[in-house]
Amino acid sequence: MKAAFAMTPGLQHRFFDDGLLQELRDLVDIETETVLETFDTPTATDVELLVTSWGCPPIDDAALTALPRLRAVVHAAGSVKAIAGAGVWERDLRITSGAALNARPVAEFAFAAVVWAGKSVLPLAERFSRQRRATDLTTDPTITGNYRTTVGVLGASATGRALLAMLDLLDVHVLVADPTIDADAAEALGAELVSLDDLFSRSDVVSVHAPLLPATHHLVDRRLLALMPDGATLINTARGPVVDHDPLRAELTAGRLKAILDVTDPEPLPADDPLWDLPNVTLTPHVAGSQGRELLRLGRAAVEEVRAFVEGRPPVRPVSAAALETSA
Amino acid sequence: MKAAFAMTPGLQHRFFDDGLLQELRDLVDIETETVLETFDTPTATDVELLVTSWGCPPIDDAALTALPRLRAVVHAAGSVKAIAGAGVWERDLRITSGAALNARPVAEFAFAAVVWAGKSVLPLAERFSRQRRATDLTTDPTITGNYRTTVGVLGASATGRALLAMLDLLDVHVLVADPTIDADAAEALGAELVSLDDLFSRSDVVSVHAPLLPATHHLVDRRLLALMPDGATLINTARGPVVDHDPLRAELTAGRLKAILDVTDPEPLPADDPLWDLPNVTLTPHVAGSQGRELLRLGRAAVEEVRAFVEGRPPVRPVSAAALETSA
Repeated sequence: MKAAFAMTPGLQHRFFDDGLLQELRDLVDIETETVLETFDTPTATDVELLVTSWGCPPIDDAALTALPRLRAVVHAAGSVKAIAGAGVWERDLRITSGAALNARPVAEFAFAAVVWAGKSVLPLAERFSRQRRATDLTTDPTITGNYRTTVGVLGASATGRALLAMLDLLDVHVLVADPTIDADAAEALGAELVSLDDLFSRSDVVSVHAPLLPATHHLVDRRLLALMPDGATLINTARGPVVDHDPLRAELTAGRLKAILDVTDPEPLPADDPLWDLPNVTLTPHVAGSQGRELLRLGRAAVEEVRAFVEGRPPVRPVSAAALETSA
Repeated sequence: MKAAFAMTPGLQHRFFDDGLLQELRDLVDIETETVLETFDTPTATDVELLVTSWGCPPIDDAALTALPRLRAVVHAAGSVKAIAGAGVWERDLRITSGAALNARPVAEFAFAAVVWAGKSVLPLAERFSRQRRATDLTTDPTITGNYRTTVGVLGASATGRALLAMLDLLDVHVLVADPTIDADAAEALGAELVSLDDLFSRSDVVSVHAPLLPATHHLVDRRLLALMPDGATLINTARGPVVDHDPLRAELTAGRLKAILDVTDPEPLPADDPLWDLPNVTLTPHVAGSQGRELLRLGRAAVEEVRAFVEGRPPVRPVSAAALETSA
């Protein structure tokens, strides 16, 4: 079976180490030193299976014409939204993605952020570094700690669920808000299902895990932010535009809330945005998703999808057009 | 039974909320609005049980003379080393401490530090904040990620064990070095028992959980630090002097290693110490232990110890002189 990589050149060596590339070559006829940067090439004509990732050209109608034998797209990355044109869903293509696996490092990052937010570690470190002396933390009211506090998870998405599983380790009360699950499902995830208003008014820390959809643009708005208790922390590892940054900026500049933002709107923020300089705000450069060796987890999963396809087994992590309407 | 608090005045309201104070008053005859700041007072004469914490005067021979009826010391904090004089062990006193519970927030902090160290989050955030633009993280060799990397835990102490339990959540290989356990015990903790040399030469991240004892002073020395791979991270939430800071400073100033240090030697560092200004070093103000509401966990445990004593049951978390020789 003829297969090809379609991604930014060189990336195949980030997602697949030598062992994984050999496994791929053992399964399909694939040239592992080169990638397709366009489908408008004679090489595409015979390709039955594409292994895609960041930088893959859109698989639009023109691409589908250039790929007449294409039967499967194995996406070694998260969402396929940027590459899968409408035609992909009309043709009987098998599409898989590593979105569920990419959720894992995001959840790990968010869990670490929740723990450190509960202890106000980053604002304290900023002050410590500035003052260069010890202060009495015992009487510092800004340190909540992670015991019988309340952590709110916005969205029982793949990353939200992975975070909920980790939060079970902490002695904290966990809330979740998500319109697609019921109270029993939330309880099975170790959380209390609440309204958006309750999530924001009751939580010491809120972590955003809602996908960016038309319905979730600016979901976290001025009103919800105003409901957060003084000193509460907002964590966003999802997508910047899920949060309305104007009221967020106002709350943070006033010092009423704290934030750990791995994504922003716009991203990155303009160099003169006040958020860069606030001691109660930590901006990280969109690093929560798979990085470094974490890409190999997506590569390994892609090899397993190729193996399943070649061996006539069902896909492990299939993607459907319907699922994309409510997920990232 | 006559009981008394002995700690810094006001701290009893940090460790015990109104509900816990009422539980204590229901169990013993205790004045909850005041604390003993010295044992050289007539009040001490009738005290059979002390509930102690930070700021408790040393229970030395003079104190024991002033406390003729003392039978139990319930320490609502970590180590009793600073307060328990030699005479405590000669007299048939029941001593308990919350050290095992205080291990929990330390392990949570360390776990968060391990996750963020694996993604180089804090050095990346520093650079991001300085440059205020996005960079290509995909080709950044300083980001290891947390997949099939190696995390080393120095010391299977209470905090080390709590961290080992949490590390089970990550897709990483875990090493532990500790002279008091064997390979089977390490395996039961989810880790491979290795020598100190192997721990430092094989780990992408090393987290220090050894108690400060004469044998562990400068245990992490120039030779071990030199064994760490380029770009590896040292995390210390134990005690500063377990690490020799001269060679550590040299490695960090050279940019070869990274560090997250919640404790240092001295602590805090002098204002002109170069570690304050290094992008690859995060200094946090000894915040890993119980803070904020986490103190209530120690207070609740102290109430349970008082209840066990009053009801004639064995102590839940007893401390012995022998145990202190190999623990914090």
